[in-house]
Amino acid sequence: MTLTPAEIAERAERVAPRLREYLTLTAFVRYDAFSDDVGAEVLVKCEHQQRTGSFKARGALAKVLGLTDEQCAAGVVTASTGNHGLGVGNALATLGGRGIVYLPENAAPGKVAALRRLGLELRAEGNDTGVLELKARAYAAENGLTYVPPYNDPEIVAGQGTVGVEIIEQLAGERLDAVVVAVGGGGLISGVAAVLKKHLPDITVYGAQPAVDDAMAASVRAGEVVKVDAGETLSDGTAGSVEPGSITLDLCRDLVDDWVLVPEDAIRDALRLVIDTEHQLIEGSAALAFAAARERRTELAGKRVAVVSCGGNMSSSTLVRALA
Amino acid sequence: MTLTPAEIAERAERVAPRLREYLTLTAFVRYDAFSDDVGAEVLVKCEHQQRTGSFKARGALAKVLGLTDEQCAAGVVTASTGNHGLGVGNALATLGGRGIVYLPENAAPGKVAALRRLGLELRAEGNDTGVLELKARAYAAENGLTYVPPYNDPEIVAGQGTVGVEIIEQLAGERLDAVVVAVGGGGLISGVAAVLKKHLPDITVYGAQPAVDDAMAASVRAGEVVKVDAGETLSDGTAGSVEPGSITLDLCRDLVDDWVLVPEDAIRDALRLVIDTEHQLIEGSAALAFAAARERRTELAGKRVAVVSCGGNMSSSTLVRALA
Repeated sequence: MTLTPAEIAERAERVAPRLREYLTLTAFVRYDAFSDDVGAEVLVKCEHQQRTGSFKARGALAKVLGLTDEQCAAGVVTASTGNHGLGVGNALATLGGRGIVYLPENAAPGKVAALRRLGLELRAEGNDTGVLELKARAYAAENGLTYVPPYNDPEIVAGQGTVGVEIIEQLAGERLDAVVVAVGGGGLISGVAAVLKKHLPDITVYGAQPAVDDAMAASVRAGEVVKVDAGETLSDGTAGSVEPGSITLDLCRDLVDDWVLVPEDAIRDALRLVIDTEHQLIEGSAALAFAAARERRTELAGKRVAVVSCGGNMSSSTLVRALA
Repeated sequence: MTLTPAEIAERAERVAPRLREYLTLTAFVRYDAFSDDVGAEVLVKCEHQQRTGSFKARGALAKVLGLTDEQCAAGVVTASTGNHGLGVGNALATLGGRGIVYLPENAAPGKVAALRRLGLELRAEGNDTGVLELKARAYAAENGLTYVPPYNDPEIVAGQGTVGVEIIEQLAGERLDAVVVAVGGGGLISGVAAVLKKHLPDITVYGAQPAVDDAMAASVRAGEVVKVDAGETLSDGTAGSVEPGSITLDLCRDLVDDWVLVPEDAIRDALRLVIDTEHQLIEGSAALAFAAARERRTELAGKRVAVVSCGGNMSSSTLVRALA
């Protein structure tokens, strides 16, 4: 099932009021020092302050809202120790329902504790995330349960698109020239860009990927999903290959105007700058978006630019490694 | 001029609605993982999310609200590169007026930029903060301007006490057994404890100081302001000696039930825990309060405890030093 950008935007606008009931209306604010640094008016959508610490709470909640009570009670299955897992857990804790998460045996204890606190059933099996996802899908299929993918799903993409719905509202009719969004599987940028381009057809959409892990940019360039030989990145939230056949490939191709491939040291510098000037804890994928805005400072000079600060789930150990 | 706790509470309650117009109603929320860690119900007053990044915005605004337009226009003088300076700058930027800040020549460039962004006039003279304070006072006195001290002032203490006013409102009639507050000059704990004890006479007030820099605890013990041979602490926001004759000495003596002197490694551990479980960036003085709650876990077991997370102005370099 594929959807056009217009259909995604329409779905996002339809589900936005429901999500607002359960989630945080995050701030959309000017970061003064960062604006000075880039030489543009930089407005930040603070999804690092969203419930569960990232925008992933939106897509998961939109998906679970579309299920019947029977489907929720029977069980919702996913495979993620990260923000998607927290989003699914939060959705089920909020709306009621059984959640089963497949996670690697070597998952960080803090992440495991956070998932358990949301009431999820945890299944630790091996350490290959690709295999875990297949196991989760298989278990759901065999038992008639609902599998919730991290991005390849119209409801998930529309849910992430509510970030764009809020940006339009919070702009209150003011101008916006560009938006910068970190890209992993492409769910967030597909939803946000679909909504923003509906209302602001001239907006420039920048997709940010780590230079060492740019599967979606490479796939769009190739015209089909390709694997890249990914290196380790501070932006662990965007890491991983793109699922073959993902609906986000066509959406990214149609909606992203420019791909910014960001070196690791630029991601670290952006993280440091946001901490030092705004004292906000953001995660690597959010730092990736800030870094991409800095990479495009020449083009963005004097413009009004939205940066989606997509998450804040940073650990102290990663922080030290990144900043030291 | 001294004031009783009842008078401080009355002033705080009077000024609270005015401050609410200009400042953030910060969240008062349960930190789940931290509650599990302490074995108590820990509710956190999130002043690290306050405008300017700390509660100091409150006292400064309360003070400036009490000045005439002529006094604001003539000039308000202070000596601080830290949260108090930001608070004064924010108050004048908000209400209108001229601000002059004395700061050391070796002040961190980021802090200087933040003060300049608020429109303050900066005077860098020498590097002795005690001398800077005297110079600021002298300049104000010689020119008929208003000096704004960081804590030894009834309006400042009452302004900080609005943290307590909000806690009472946000409790919505629920029980609260204890409150933990970091103490430097004692303005915050004096204001908060005065308000809380008015409404909750049985509450236990814990004053947290770094074990290596416990001037107020030592002064209360001695019955007069004493100097301590202070060591370096991660809680730089509470560092420094107590001003002789400060109104906060009697207030602390009357209002603080127990002093918790916290070792540096415990402050660091608390910082790490808050980052890893709540992904909130807090500064050392806030980590001090969290650490003090952990130090008193035996007494606090099963209780409902408020921790005032007083500020979030942490730099990346301090963060790395603290966590490495």
